[in-house]
Amino acid sequence: MNRRTVIFISDGTGITAETLGNGLLSQFAGIDFRPVRFPFIDSLEKVENCLLRIEEIYKQDGVRPLVFMTLMNEEISRRLRMSDALFMDLFDAFISPLEHELGQRSNHSVGRSHGQENREYARRIAAMNFALAHDDGVSAADLKSADVILVGVSRCGKTPTSLYLSLQFGLMAANYPLIPEDFERDTLPPPLAPFRDKLYGLTISPEQLHRIREERRPHSRYASLANCRAEVAAAESLMRRAGITWFDMTSRSIEEMAVHLMQAVNRKANGS
Amino acid sequence: MNRRTVIFISDGTGITAETLGNGLLSQFAGIDFRPVRFPFIDSLEKVENCLLRIEEIYKQDGVRPLVFMTLMNEEISRRLRMSDALFMDLFDAFISPLEHELGQRSNHSVGRSHGQENREYARRIAAMNFALAHDDGVSAADLKSADVILVGVSRCGKTPTSLYLSLQFGLMAANYPLIPEDFERDTLPPPLAPFRDKLYGLTISPEQLHRIREERRPHSRYASLANCRAEVAAAESLMRRAGITWFDMTSRSIEEMAVHLMQAVNRKANGS
Repeated sequence: MNRRTVIFISDGTGITAETLGNGLLSQFAGIDFRPVRFPFIDSLEKVENCLLRIEEIYKQDGVRPLVFMTLMNEEISRRLRMSDALFMDLFDAFISPLEHELGQRSNHSVGRSHGQENREYARRIAAMNFALAHDDGVSAADLKSADVILVGVSRCGKTPTSLYLSLQFGLMAANYPLIPEDFERDTLPPPLAPFRDKLYGLTISPEQLHRIREERRPHSRYASLANCRAEVAAAESLMRRAGITWFDMTSRSIEEMAVHLMQAVNRKANGS
Repeated sequence: MNRRTVIFISDGTGITAETLGNGLLSQFAGIDFRPVRFPFIDSLEKVENCLLRIEEIYKQDGVRPLVFMTLMNEEISRRLRMSDALFMDLFDAFISPLEHELGQRSNHSVGRSHGQENREYARRIAAMNFALAHDDGVSAADLKSADVILVGVSRCGKTPTSLYLSLQFGLMAANYPLIPEDFERDTLPPPLAPFRDKLYGLTISPEQLHRIREERRPHSRYASLANCRAEVAAAESLMRRAGITWFDMTSRSIEEMAVHLMQAVNRKANGS
């Protein structure tokens, strides 16, 4: 298979460059892209090491590497461009049109203001602590502080979704399991009753749930396909009658589910 | 303050478009950017709604909105461009140079292959379950499966960093606190002894630790600045003598810390 080295260079973590780069490269089938990462390149000294590595990679591969870069500092990016590679500069491509449109020059500084980052950071840490403290119904205290409360059967994806909502978006996300007792009583868990407008459901195909539960408790009644079918049907029926909007995790990633939930929360906040 | 609407449009979650867009806009001081998000725009029907909203926003603001877009489907993106906005098409800008460089046409399909996503998803969920099961030293069982074990004083940032490493990178990340008992004995917690090569330390300034602990247990000895100073000094001295590489969380975000740790783990794996 055709092989090609892809280099991600950033003055920050490089996560944005890598995510966008991977999205672009997924459009080219049949090539084995080998990633190399240079995060935190925020000085001319650090860029020299990149130049050496680019040269080595070129020699080794016999073809120039692809470089996806997000560098705010013009001097650093100019120095980098002296090496031989295909440069895809994610900032440079858009800074000029933005300067023209907004009628002002950009700052060309590295990163954002630290004050803002710290507040944002504190908010996400608080949200994560909330998500951990309110995981799997361990505590029903303080649910009035929740932005969102996820409900669904055991192992349908509530915990990773709550944690992602908190870590990525700073949302206070609790989650609460729907268990056989709730299905027998045929009502929502009583502690959730006052918070109807914050409840969102997750569901999953019984087949996928069965596979996930088998890994955790092989050959148990809990994991059996028959039981998964019954629980999913009972949970969906309960959510339907309670008027809870729910989402299907079956073919969705954690990120996709988190964004769907953010949209639903925002729609409700906007009263539409 | 000058106000401007920024629209993020994607056939996926839109997280990449938003992250890159925010990075670019942070370069323009003094403008109040108002974000509007249109994720999951993967059909011509859905794009019609975007066109209407763009028109509304233009009328309301009196100035055309800025649009950051990641759309794989050419027909959808062509239709979108019929509205009046400043389009920054994160894919379009780089697809042509890539096609030229790689000597092949791109697929222009929406998203990646689902098979790969599912494996990747399963790996990240398994990693998250591992991180939760091995948070704060709750279990020392199965530490041999860990890719990395973080140590540090209580509240220095071990939990969010472990969870981020697992959810974002699929790394099996355990964490273990360093507590007054360890400082008195002046050795690492005994269960960690066999895993010296997987240990990484986190540290933090005593002042920041004091602020964080005060929120949790106000006016306690645990949170006092004197105690925070003593614990941080003891932990750093212990890690120094044990030969553990450590990182300072003080002015770093969770993402930055996670990427620094990934780099350290990779350097060790490459034997350098």
